[in-house]
Amino acid sequence: MSSFVESIIINFIFVRNNNFEAMNNFEFVNPTKLIFGKGTIAHLGKLIPIDKKIMITFGGGSVKTNGVYNQVIEALKNHNFIEFWGIEPNPKYETLLKAIHLGREEKIDMLLAVGGGSVVDGTKFIAAAIPYTQGEEWELILDNSLAKSTIPLADVITLPATGSEMNNGAVISREETKEKYPFFTDTNFPIFSILDPEVTYSLPKFQIACGVVDTYVHVVEQYLTIPVGTKLMDRWAEGILQTLIEIAPDLRKEKPNYDTMCEYMLSATMGLNGFIAMGVEQDWATHMIGHELTALHGLTHGVTLAIVYPALLRIMKEQKKIKLLQYAKRVWNVEDVDIAIEKTENFFREMGLPTRLSEVKVGDDTIEEIVRRFAERKIVLGERHNITPDVVKQILQNAK
Amino acid sequence: MSSFVESIIINFIFVRNNNFEAMNNFEFVNPTKLIFGKGTIAHLGKLIPIDKKIMITFGGGSVKTNGVYNQVIEALKNHNFIEFWGIEPNPKYETLLKAIHLGREEKIDMLLAVGGGSVVDGTKFIAAAIPYTQGEEWELILDNSLAKSTIPLADVITLPATGSEMNNGAVISREETKEKYPFFTDTNFPIFSILDPEVTYSLPKFQIACGVVDTYVHVVEQYLTIPVGTKLMDRWAEGILQTLIEIAPDLRKEKPNYDTMCEYMLSATMGLNGFIAMGVEQDWATHMIGHELTALHGLTHGVTLAIVYPALLRIMKEQKKIKLLQYAKRVWNVEDVDIAIEKTENFFREMGLPTRLSEVKVGDDTIEEIVRRFAERKIVLGERHNITPDVVKQILQNAK
Repeated sequence: MSSFVESIIINFIFVRNNNFEAMNNFEFVNPTKLIFGKGTIAHLGKLIPIDKKIMITFGGGSVKTNGVYNQVIEALKNHNFIEFWGIEPNPKYETLLKAIHLGREEKIDMLLAVGGGSVVDGTKFIAAAIPYTQGEEWELILDNSLAKSTIPLADVITLPATGSEMNNGAVISREETKEKYPFFTDTNFPIFSILDPEVTYSLPKFQIACGVVDTYVHVVEQYLTIPVGTKLMDRWAEGILQTLIEIAPDLRKEKPNYDTMCEYMLSATMGLNGFIAMGVEQDWATHMIGHELTALHGLTHGVTLAIVYPALLRIMKEQKKIKLLQYAKRVWNVEDVDIAIEKTENFFREMGLPTRLSEVKVGDDTIEEIVRRFAERKIVLGERHNITPDVVKQILQNAK
Repeated sequence: MSSFVESIIINFIFVRNNNFEAMNNFEFVNPTKLIFGKGTIAHLGKLIPIDKKIMITFGGGSVKTNGVYNQVIEALKNHNFIEFWGIEPNPKYETLLKAIHLGREEKIDMLLAVGGGSVVDGTKFIAAAIPYTQGEEWELILDNSLAKSTIPLADVITLPATGSEMNNGAVISREETKEKYPFFTDTNFPIFSILDPEVTYSLPKFQIACGVVDTYVHVVEQYLTIPVGTKLMDRWAEGILQTLIEIAPDLRKEKPNYDTMCEYMLSATMGLNGFIAMGVEQDWATHMIGHELTALHGLTHGVTLAIVYPALLRIMKEQKKIKLLQYAKRVWNVEDVDIAIEKTENFFREMGLPTRLSEVKVGDDTIEEIVRRFAERKIVLGERHNITPDVVKQILQNAK
């Protein structure tokens, strides 16, 4: 899986860096239109041309209890649409194939994902696979460049976390072979994304915590690396972190206020849409190690990040020290790198997530297996490509 | 002019706000692709399809002395292109008409602007006017919605200041009638913009100073208003201001370093591309008053902003006090609003610009004329629409 995850590192932020010296050269583009604010789901009827045949894709059904489903159906009452239900967390190729076949049969020409990042991810693959009839759809996953066209895709995002609503990335799993691959195409940006912060009120606190930590770690993977002179991008990354820290106490309340949910939702989108990635070095080791913990133990993505990241900082402290000190001062108002790392871990704990492997019953056997996997795949991680399997072991031991 | 400038306020940042209560609902889209870094002009040959007939538009000729022209011609040596020279600062309709006629005759199907914001602005109008043959081209300026299609447009930006390289706005002047109008269409975003910081080394210090102050005031017009709970956008606006302040000493050196020019160029683009405008209140009174000073005295735009903005802050201090205190603390590390205003004015002065009307020989007669114009047009300015002609007078008197 890791070599595929590695391709995320290269592709995910729509920025291709050239060197390790001054600010890197980069390319940036993000054509997705955001429609943000309360009541915006009602705009769907105007946003989608009336002559489109739409397939609306859903997850497991929480949108039926929180009112989102009714808002969508009401907004599209004069449109021609069909529904596809059941895209699961870590969306499965097998499930998506059913949607692809249905979409072809019904000759749909527009896709609308309504749900969290997994529904949007899965719908990105459906959008690219419907027009691909010259071979098995799985070929698109193995070679993303085969995806030459795509059904136009939009979404109503209901769980701020992955940033999928404003990027062209997806991660698709295949149950049959226990594979999990990223999927990127130039045309896979949503045409528009509706972000109504009011839909987040009904999210369980655990999901909000995972969304906040996912966003936080997306940002630091693009920020807490090695200095290449990216003053403005540093400020913007710090701005997202400061905002998350500032809204955290309100997020934990029974009913957070509307502005808090706005900041949470906007931060999640801005954390992985390329806006803070211009010219910067990137890490992504925590994500890659975390994916292994999910693969082996089914741990929620945000939980794996909360566990791995503080340990990674402790082990990689020397390499990251210049940026870590800047982070300590600007984000946590302290002068000490170790205190900043401690505050980071405490922040994740205060959000309600475990930050140690022992809390989730992961022991040495799993650590050994992860180290073995990385060694077998000859993968080294991190912004300097020096997190060898041995360093991964140190990080996981440190996270116990 | 002001009612047209007012439409900038509404349209310029691609964000339409709905209310004055919590964070505003907004829409955001920006499809322009940035290609950023040294040596990127050489990518032109790959970026533009070989079958395109290109018209390259230029300003007065500085690109011939600083090497940009040669780089462009070298990159496009296998392409089919014609050149149009002479788009002036505050680009004139009369000049642009010549380009429009030439473009039609030559059946061009791609435009490439090479120059500063005025060249890009002018080329946006050329792009929209070439396909408009059902009436006089000026009709597009009077009613932007008539612009239904556009010739694809890209640019190589040589003077960071206006942000035109990553937005869909332009300002067009008509010499014959002394009119000056904004021009916006949904399709007028550049397809791509090449930002090579090395081209800025040859800029005169005065132009750099004006570019920095223009960027600074673009940002504060979107930030220093009234609080509506926009934590992340505030951080990002402050991030641009902090960056400009941090790089200013190096910018004033004989040969600034490359990273400084990167930050300057990136800050100018990010200051007016909608990225910091999501959900925020906006002011723009300084721009509107400054435009009158330019119209009456031919003052450079950046100079008018450096003069008007500190005075506006002094007069509007009470209305802006909550944000001003935040600005004082976060941007200038002081606890006092008056000191922050003083530091703002000093920053403009240290960049080398005048900050008082007396320095540019503008007296009471001009102030009276500007007040008369606003009164005649029944225009009130500012984020609360309470800067009446009488308040404009107080501001200009304060700027003497």
